[in-house]
Amino acid sequence: MERHFDEELRDLKEKLIRMSSIVEEMIEKSITALKIRDEVLMKQVFEKEKNVNMMQIEIDDTALKLIALRQPAASDLRFLVSAIKINADLERIGDLAVNIAERVQDLLKEPPLKPLIDIPRMAEISQKMVKDSIDSFINRNSALAREVCRRDDSVDNLNDQIFRELLTYMLQDAKNINRAIGLMLVARCLERIADHATNIGEDVYYIVEGKDIRHHIEDK
Amino acid sequence: MERHFDEELRDLKEKLIRMSSIVEEMIEKSITALKIRDEVLMKQVFEKEKNVNMMQIEIDDTALKLIALRQPAASDLRFLVSAIKINADLERIGDLAVNIAERVQDLLKEPPLKPLIDIPRMAEISQKMVKDSIDSFINRNSALAREVCRRDDSVDNLNDQIFRELLTYMLQDAKNINRAIGLMLVARCLERIADHATNIGEDVYYIVEGKDIRHHIEDK
Repeated sequence: MERHFDEELRDLKEKLIRMSSIVEEMIEKSITALKIRDEVLMKQVFEKEKNVNMMQIEIDDTALKLIALRQPAASDLRFLVSAIKINADLERIGDLAVNIAERVQDLLKEPPLKPLIDIPRMAEISQKMVKDSIDSFINRNSALAREVCRRDDSVDNLNDQIFRELLTYMLQDAKNINRAIGLMLVARCLERIADHATNIGEDVYYIVEGKDIRHHIEDK
Repeated sequence: MERHFDEELRDLKEKLIRMSSIVEEMIEKSITALKIRDEVLMKQVFEKEKNVNMMQIEIDDTALKLIALRQPAASDLRFLVSAIKINADLERIGDLAVNIAERVQDLLKEPPLKPLIDIPRMAEISQKMVKDSIDSFINRNSALAREVCRRDDSVDNLNDQIFRELLTYMLQDAKNINRAIGLMLVARCLERIADHATNIGEDVYYIVEGKDIRHHIEDK
């Protein structure tokens, strides 16, 4: 009753999609918790962490077993090894969402510093980048992968903008410093999430097109 | 004239060791540049980045070819896949050293905020963690790998301490804010470098002992 290799691959892909939706949800909840000041949402992020960790181990094992038992051809092998690398990126994205929730925990102890516009926007872009990077992997869509990498610039720009704005709050009043730093760190976590999505996009571009854009795209 | 598998493995290990020494050197130079305010050292960090990027591609290709052509047994397979993951960690450590050098570039435009003690200490520990994590991988030394993971706590503590100290500088005088944030970001880069070394340590523990400490060690 041996399963087909295709079926096993499909199973692995589904697991990765599930893992991705969990971490996307974690990003969304951590930022909404900050925006609407909701502790319940914030706690849900902490609760998801174990889930993600268990899934990472499961996906790694599945991929390794497939490589060992099936001895796949070059392109499938590249796909499976990439799955393991992408899996590690997703797990760290989950960690970063937890880091955001930790900052939110502190930020909710004080009144809001300012209405939040740019941070939720940055979160939305980053979350979409994660989703699209995984979609590009599953569907071997190199155009989408490249598109994800390009969006990284807008996240970096938003981060700089947020940084500068928060700096003015700090200069205005020393009482703002703590909260401004908290928000800066949230923005940096989002920036790092976008970096991980970009890593995934670069990997996908490489396995689909056989060309490495990892170290060129930045030059543009 | 086929080469022995052992020989090819040794070659891969040597490449990883070389890659690791380059990124260790980048960490060291970026922090020394900050400490003794030396622009030449700082620029050397930027120059090394291309090197690291080329090495990453080379190591990835070597490991993938070994998996594809040699169809290695389970434990060798695990080793080769880990080499690819560790390679990605080393590349990001190189990126982080470049990030530090970018901060240093800004910091050197202003007079020093304070004498630096803790940041160089943090750099020293992180750099040693990188070195030891690679040594633990090459020699399949799970005790050393675990030891690396444990040291992550002292880096986190140093980071918190630095953070709090810099906060007092910011509260004292708004003119300090810019430089204090610059130093905070340097410390955070070092913290992330230590995180990558810890990831490597966790991977090594897993491939040597077959037990996963990734998501337990943190609980202790």
